[in-house]
Parts: sequence; C-alpha cells; structure tokens
Amino acid sequence: MQLGMIGLGRMGGNMTKRLSERGHDVKTYDPGVESTAKTLEELRDQLDAPRSFWMMVPAGKITEDTFQTLLGLASPGDVVVDGGNSNFHDSQRRYADAKSKGIHFVDAGVSGGVWGLANGYCLMVGGDDGAVAQVEPVFRDLAPEDGYAHVGAAGAGHFVKMVHNGIEYGLMQAYAEGFEVMEKSEFDLDLHAIAGIWRYGSVVRSWLLELLVNAFDAEGSHLEKIRGYVEDSGEGRWTIHEAMAEDVPVPVITAALFARFASRQDESFAAKVNAALRNQFGGHAVKLEET
Amino acid sequence: MQLGMIGLGRMGGNMTKRLSERGHDVKTYDPGVESTAKTLEELRDQLDAPRSFWMMVPAGKITEDTFQTLLGLASPGDVVVDGGNSNFHDSQRRYADAKSKGIHFVDAGVSGGVWGLANGYCLMVGGDDGAVAQVEPVFRDLAPEDGYAHVGAAGAGHFVKMVHNGIEYGLMQAYAEGFEVMEKSEFDLDLHAIAGIWRYGSVVRSWLLELLVNAFDAEGSHLEKIRGYVEDSGEGRWTIHEAMAEDVPVPVITAALFARFASRQDESFAAKVNAALRNQFGGHAVKLEET
Repeated sequence: MQLGMIGLGRMGGNMTKRLSERGHDVKTYDPGVESTAKTLEELRDQLDAPRSFWMMVPAGKITEDTFQTLLGLASPGDVVVDGGNSNFHDSQRRYADAKSKGIHFVDAGVSGGVWGLANGYCLMVGGDDGAVAQVEPVFRDLAPEDGYAHVGAAGAGHFVKMVHNGIEYGLMQAYAEGFEVMEKSEFDLDLHAIAGIWRYGSVVRSWLLELLVNAFDAEGSHLEKIRGYVEDSGEGRWTIHEAMAEDVPVPVITAALFARFASRQDESFAAKVNAALRNQFGGHAVKLEET
Repeated sequence: MQLGMIGLGRMGGNMTKRLSERGHDVKTYDPGVESTAKTLEELRDQLDAPRSFWMMVPAGKITEDTFQTLLGLASPGDVVVDGGNSNFHDSQRRYADAKSKGIHFVDAGVSGGVWGLANGYCLMVGGDDGAVAQVEPVFRDLAPEDGYAHVGAAGAGHFVKMVHNGIEYGLMQAYAEGFEVMEKSEFDLDLHAIAGIWRYGSVVRSWLLELLVNAFDAEGSHLEKIRGYVEDSGEGRWTIHEAMAEDVPVPVITAALFARFASRQDESFAAKVNAALRNQFGGHAVKLEET
C-alpha cells in the first residue's frame, strides 16, 4: 500500500526500508534528508486519497507540531498514525482533535529498536476499526508474524507501549542488580560466560539477556568503558503515574526508575541529610566536602 | 558414563530420563520408588569406583542427611554432586567436609524446571577441576548446547544459581506489575493477546513471558481461579543477604521478595499502624474490624 513516512531517523528510516523491501510504496518527508519531499504539503500531494501518514518523530513538541500541521493539510478520511512514544493522554486528545475534522488518528506503540529492521517490530495499535484496517497491511509487514495486535480504542496502543517500557525498566534493573552481586562476590566469576549459558535452558533467558551477552562481547565482562549513568525517556514515569491513578502498587518499576535517577547523581542530597542526622544523634563521623 | 541419582522427584526423575535417553548408565535411589536401590549402600555397590553420586533432593535437612550418609559410605576419589538449591555457604562447608575424607564435592545450580526434560537444563557448576571433569559428560548431556559452564570454585555454582533466582524474582514482579496496570486500566485490554504479541519483536520478550501466555491460555486473561498468593523458596532472601554482605543495593530484587510476603498477608500490621496514626494526627476515619 501507499504510505507517507514522516521522519527518517533510526526508527523511521529502518521502517521505510523494511516496508519498501516488502513492496509498499513509501513516500517520505524528513527536513534533514535531501531526497525526501520538501514539505508536508508536497508529501500530501504525492499520496492518493484516502492517505495514510505515519509520524515517526520524537515524542513531545515535534510530534505535536507535525500533527497540527498535518491536521491543517490532510483531507477527511485520511489516517494519521503516530508511531512515536507519545503519552497516551496526548494520543487520546489528538484522536479527538482529528475526529472533529473528519481525520482518523491511530496510535501505534512500536518496540524492537535498531533490531526491528531485521526481526520486525512488535506493534501495539489503538484506534477505530476502520482506520486501523486502512493501515493494517503496513502493520502486518512491519511486525514479525503474530507480533501485531489492535489492542483497543485510541490511546490504547500508546498505553500498552508505555506499560511495556515500564516492565522493561524492571527487567533491566533485575538483571543489573544480579550481575552487580556477582561482580562484587568472593568468587572470580566470568560474567560473560554466565550470561552466555543463561540463554540456554534457564528460567531467566530473554532477549535482553542476549543483548547483555552482546555488550559483554563488545566491552568485556567488567564494562570498564561504560559509565554507570542511565537516562530515561519518560515511559517509566508515565507507568508510575498511571499506577497511582489506578491505586496499583508498582514497587519494582518504581525502584527501577529511581535507580536510574540515582545513577545520574554525583552525590545525593538525601545522603547528605542522612549523614548529618547520624552525626547529630549519634556523633557518627561525617565525611566533609573537600574545599 | 555411570551415575548414581539420589531422588527421583520432578527434577531427578526427568534428569534420569534425559540421561538414560542419551546413553548414560543411571543407577537410582529413592525411598519412595520401588524399582530403585533399597539403600544408599546398595546404590554405592551398583557403581564402579571412582563413583559419581548426584543428590537431587530438597535443600535443607534432607540434603544434609543424605550428604552425611554418603560421606560415610563413599570411597576416596568418589564425587558427590549436589544439584539442589542449597545455600552456597553450605556447599562450601560440604566441600571442605568431603575433602577431609578424600571425597570430591561439586555444586551444580540447575535451572529449567519441568521443561528441562525436553529443553535441557541450564547448569552452573562449582568445584575442583578434576572432580568437575569426572562428571562433565553428564553435565553436557543434561544441558542444552552452550547451556553448561564450570563457573568457579566449590560454592560458585550454587552462588550463581542463587543470583539467577534473585533476578527471576525481579523479572517476574516487573511483568506482574505491568499486567496489573493494564488489567486495571480504562481500556478493555486483552492481556492474553498483548502477552502474545510481545513474544515477537518486542524488547520484553523472554521465556517467562512465553510461560505467561501459557498461563493465560489455560486460565483466561483474568486468572480468575489463581489466588494472588506467592511462595518463595529461599534464593531471593539469600541474594539479598549476599547483597548486604557486599554493600550492593538491590532495590528491585528486595521489592520483588517483599511483594511476595505482602501477597501472603490477609492483613498487614503495618497497615493497621498506618491507619491508626492517620487517625491520631488528622482524625482520618479508620475502618474497624468486624467483631
């Protein structure tokens, strides 16, 4: 089918490649890529109505600006898919905004990262049945077999992707803690070999564990060159927000996010407070900042 | 090779089957199974020296009793393997006890559960090189290809298996929390379908996720018949003990263990204290026990 892909970054570029290889007619727009349409209007004019646009741009302002521009130039019956990691509340609002103009909005949670080109992307899609059906040939070819589902109404795709990423934080931190306990142990353990065998027959085998073996392959078992500094891109926080809105306890996902925060602190003010209090009530020695 | 398997429960029985299918001569002892040797002495006499014994009995008293009996009847040069989930400190002590009598002790951490018969068991082995080499043909045939490693000195096998299980607690709780956030959400999500697609192309794909799909297959997406009551068998606690001995923070593994504790409480005394305090300082209403 025909698709207008907006954004040819790491994800959008690979998705365009995967779709083109499978016979889809993908028109593209990326202001940083010479060979693409020069404007969103030009992209629109390259597509036959009813059109399918796929936004694959960073969540936040760029997504919002692109969406608003698309609303201004799309025709009733066109479908706008947001494949980025938008907050599902924004997707629900965009669905309503689009609907008021007769335009369809579909939110697609996409997982798979740089490996998606070869392996396919797991796709969690939210939206109205008709709009989802229009883009379904693309969903089917982006995903590996059985790796795509229409999970619910508008917003549900990004909601499920949000929870997926929240789980991911917990899984990563569980491995991370276990490997630190082994690294600091009295035994001289070969973490590369251990991660390696765990891929075969063990209960903890997973794709993340395979990636960890790749990391040890590239960096050695002690990861000397990698700093212990971990960013986050929002979905973990949102998962915790939603858990609070639902009164659901998520101690592991929360601890995993907070461990990332701690990883970014040179020093914690909470630790200063703790040290100061121990000194006050028990006369315990404090370490003083070097001046 | 020839092996004396002690304990024909779910694990030992399947391991005996897997080894026999691969041409090993496995003699067996289990007081609850008619067709096996009647005593450990009889098992010993069925084996040619130097013998290899494999204990596959529950960790704790049964393992200790079996081990002590074996020490009394084994000959110098024999190898005793403990394939159970023993604490690695016990394994270190048993290694020393055995060594003082010229007997070799090897600790084998075994993962794979009831699926090991078909898939093979991931094997993490600790002990002296010579003793491990004596039993290696069995390790290689119990494990899938690349699923076995001699990870270090005596105790290291059970240490690595302990951490493996600590990680397992964290992984399970991460999925568990994410699925509860989805179950309680405003969307009417098909958790079975979502777990299903996540197996293909997503970052959170894993063997545990495949097992969750099996559970949803069998029980339905709402798991109506399964009580939210989760036992533990010690390795999570031990992982936290060792983390404390090493001054390593393991917030996710700890939260996962404590979530299991909470799952077993009809009511929490801590919650009673919290409710009472809110009432004291703010006059917040308390729910009274029905009398």
